[in-house]
Amino acid sequence: MQRALTTPREANGKSNFAEWYQAVVREAELAESSPVRGSMIIKPWGYGIWEQIQRELDRRIKETGHDNCYFPLFIPLSFIAREAKHVEGFAKEMAIVTHHRLKMSGGSLVPDPDARLEEPLVVRPTSETIIGDAFSRWIKSHRDLPLLINQWANVVRWEMRTRLFLRTSEFLWQEGHTAHADAAEAMAESLKILELYREFAETVLAMPVIAGEKPANERFPGAANTYSIEAMMQDGKALQAGTSHYLGTHFAEAQNIRFQNEAGEFALCHTTSWGVSTRLIGGVIMVHGDDDGLRVPPAIAPRQIVIVPMLRNKPEDANVLGYCEALSHALSRQTALGDRIRVQLDTKDIKSADKRWNWVRRGAPIIIEIGPRDVANEQVTFMRRDRLRDGDKIQSASVPRDRFIAEAPQMLDDIQIRLFSEARTRLDSNIRSDVRDFDQLAEYFSGGGDDEDNAEFRGWVRAPWSQPSGTALDDVDARLKKLKLTIRNAPVRQGEADLGKCIFTGQRAVQEILIARSY
Amino acid sequence: MQRALTTPREANGKSNFAEWYQAVVREAELAESSPVRGSMIIKPWGYGIWEQIQRELDRRIKETGHDNCYFPLFIPLSFIAREAKHVEGFAKEMAIVTHHRLKMSGGSLVPDPDARLEEPLVVRPTSETIIGDAFSRWIKSHRDLPLLINQWANVVRWEMRTRLFLRTSEFLWQEGHTAHADAAEAMAESLKILELYREFAETVLAMPVIAGEKPANERFPGAANTYSIEAMMQDGKALQAGTSHYLGTHFAEAQNIRFQNEAGEFALCHTTSWGVSTRLIGGVIMVHGDDDGLRVPPAIAPRQIVIVPMLRNKPEDANVLGYCEALSHALSRQTALGDRIRVQLDTKDIKSADKRWNWVRRGAPIIIEIGPRDVANEQVTFMRRDRLRDGDKIQSASVPRDRFIAEAPQMLDDIQIRLFSEARTRLDSNIRSDVRDFDQLAEYFSGGGDDEDNAEFRGWVRAPWSQPSGTALDDVDARLKKLKLTIRNAPVRQGEADLGKCIFTGQRAVQEILIARSY
Repeated sequence: MQRALTTPREANGKSNFAEWYQAVVREAELAESSPVRGSMIIKPWGYGIWEQIQRELDRRIKETGHDNCYFPLFIPLSFIAREAKHVEGFAKEMAIVTHHRLKMSGGSLVPDPDARLEEPLVVRPTSETIIGDAFSRWIKSHRDLPLLINQWANVVRWEMRTRLFLRTSEFLWQEGHTAHADAAEAMAESLKILELYREFAETVLAMPVIAGEKPANERFPGAANTYSIEAMMQDGKALQAGTSHYLGTHFAEAQNIRFQNEAGEFALCHTTSWGVSTRLIGGVIMVHGDDDGLRVPPAIAPRQIVIVPMLRNKPEDANVLGYCEALSHALSRQTALGDRIRVQLDTKDIKSADKRWNWVRRGAPIIIEIGPRDVANEQVTFMRRDRLRDGDKIQSASVPRDRFIAEAPQMLDDIQIRLFSEARTRLDSNIRSDVRDFDQLAEYFSGGGDDEDNAEFRGWVRAPWSQPSGTALDDVDARLKKLKLTIRNAPVRQGEADLGKCIFTGQRAVQEILIARSY
Repeated sequence: MQRALTTPREANGKSNFAEWYQAVVREAELAESSPVRGSMIIKPWGYGIWEQIQRELDRRIKETGHDNCYFPLFIPLSFIAREAKHVEGFAKEMAIVTHHRLKMSGGSLVPDPDARLEEPLVVRPTSETIIGDAFSRWIKSHRDLPLLINQWANVVRWEMRTRLFLRTSEFLWQEGHTAHADAAEAMAESLKILELYREFAETVLAMPVIAGEKPANERFPGAANTYSIEAMMQDGKALQAGTSHYLGTHFAEAQNIRFQNEAGEFALCHTTSWGVSTRLIGGVIMVHGDDDGLRVPPAIAPRQIVIVPMLRNKPEDANVLGYCEALSHALSRQTALGDRIRVQLDTKDIKSADKRWNWVRRGAPIIIEIGPRDVANEQVTFMRRDRLRDGDKIQSASVPRDRFIAEAPQMLDDIQIRLFSEARTRLDSNIRSDVRDFDQLAEYFSGGGDDEDNAEFRGWVRAPWSQPSGTALDDVDARLKKLKLTIRNAPVRQGEADLGKCIFTGQRAVQEILIARSY
């Protein structure tokens, strides 16, 4: 059987997920490694997906009252030091600029010793410090609050072991930063964004997630509360797809973000920060991909419908092309999922069969192939990427042209919903709630082979716990680490039922948490 | 007389343009200096203008067949060295990353000596080298050509003397990079983009420009031809607002960008690159600003119509607010300049008179003020920012609500056109064509005071020249430099008339060039 992709998700009855992931990234031409260790090149199809993600998310961020700004790429070392003093779990792997000029020396180009910076600059790993510094200047009175800012930017965190989209030294993201007059309002902001991310992931990425609060040991350093959305990949692992932090007054204190309240007194602001990144594209691949490559949800597909003309270097080619152009034009004027349908007529000078496989691999939602017979019958022959095969056979259908044009919006809607519902079923049916103690947990996750990247499928466990803290939490963390597990989050909206006993401490449980392997 | 801005363009009969520029940037809240020397913070109103610029330009770049990608921020030093070897006029002021980790040492945070990079990384000043490297891998056959790529990115060029938007160490831009099978096609691409930039500047920024070719001494290092669009600021200086380069095979050679042609032979690609940056915002300020602040052309105004409710903490406030909300809603549903009208209802908790001046300073095209009387009369009282004053007095008009809503699109169109035509008149009437020799040139530009930033207004000179090269060109360059002048470009589309003699060499002229002071 011909597959669009070289590498299936399983081979010889064993998981091959890591290799498959790389094959999709490479063969769907989403991204590639660059000569700069840990940095990727995002290719047109991958970047096109990011642009759609940006567009949809940016609209939501603006509609909730946030303004976009741009802050410097470089952060003075003293700013970072201020944070380091403040924050224990501070990560130090960052790119550091020490010189501002090159010079020729002995025939080769070197950093000019005379152009050493007095104070080294750090390439932003995140912008709390530099934005907080601006906030401390911008905020004077309660009238300046809330201050709601977002930035689309590149950030750098030096990574030793990288994986395209999932963990790269440089990545693209948005980072929101807000300041508020009191804790309640800032906490409400953190939760509003958590819900915004959930709705965005589910509606736009067709990626079901569970929103919840991270345990204390998984908090962003310096945060009072960290919330996340967690998605289940097809290998059962969890992917943290977005985080939202309530920072209390910790950062305001370090950066002196104060305001004069209505009584004329000076008070510290309560701040939040939150972000999602190009990592989402890795999630989309691992949630929706199949053995023929990627399947892009229509809401973020750079091209939702691709038309491949079947040309044979014969006189009737002109006819076929004309038919395709008119079809492309008619489809482009239709609206689906709130926007004009994005159509591409693929006139590249390669074999049409190769084009078909290219678009299958890339995951264009609908692929149309038009030959002379379609023109003669005024019909459209097409494949839906969400139900590409019937058994092993490729499924295509031919319908009258006008009907296809009329039904295309509904079809794209339907593909979006089916991709979501397929993923939703996978998530719902792979969370076990029947684990009663740590031994059962260990048993469930034991085995799976030595190849951590291609472990056997294991779902998640939702289990009650007593929310231990301090050394008791460290102990839980250590026990889980041995099983290569982490607590993902404590889902929001938990019932009031009696939860029974904590699977770690045996004490009375106060909430449920999700436990999983993760990226 | 009350002005929205603290600093006028002239004071005591002398030009005050540099201070005025800074006042607009600051008081219209467009941007501010950051604690990182040479890097700016772009604030919401400034970034909103950039977003509109991006949206309009991105559409044009995509419509002409270019795909967006993203390439690494860091460039290995060896790549830069390859270019340096190749290019004489190579600039060396760049930010250089030498370490990838911080550590605590003696109580302070320092670059970890154990984390020194084997090969330093340069923060991209432009991406020819790193993108060229990708091209050399991506291009195999003539079927892969043309390869048309664009990137939106931040770049860093260490600058000693900076001015917000106009010259900053970090700035935002788009850079296009293309590869072609032959010189004619690559040259056509360079000129197509030059025309795209011209049309964009004039239609969207309402900024008239002259498109032309840079003289050899002003070419991008390594380029075979450099083209630019040049705009005239209100102080008479020229601003290079965009450049497009035909790179010949120079970069292809350095980066080994080759393809197999239809005959099966390997040949070097011909490449181009081109870009515009956040500098355009500086141009918009200096072309359209007045003594009340910025005037933003409607096509790039983040908010085209702002509604200020005149609230007095009285019961009728609710009525006024309701009326404003309905008006905002009705206006938002109208289309102007190809998009939904961007409306803001300003409900900030400050005095309405302050709001009015804020929006005047920022240059919102139409500012509406609604009080109880407007509600009672079902009317709209508004100011047009392009004709704010009648003499010294602020001009406002009241028209029936429904008429205002119906006419708003036309009014925005009209403001766009008037701003352009005002600037066009300034450009056209300030280019002298009657300079016959170098002495006349020197005389015209002589004087103007010692303060280079606030020199007296001098327009441009369009003069014939013999297009000298080599040392003769160096000589011209040196003579102009003494007068603080440069050749801006040789306008495209020149007539066939007899041009007379070169003002530098006295020889028979072959084309006309523009000479001006510049930013």
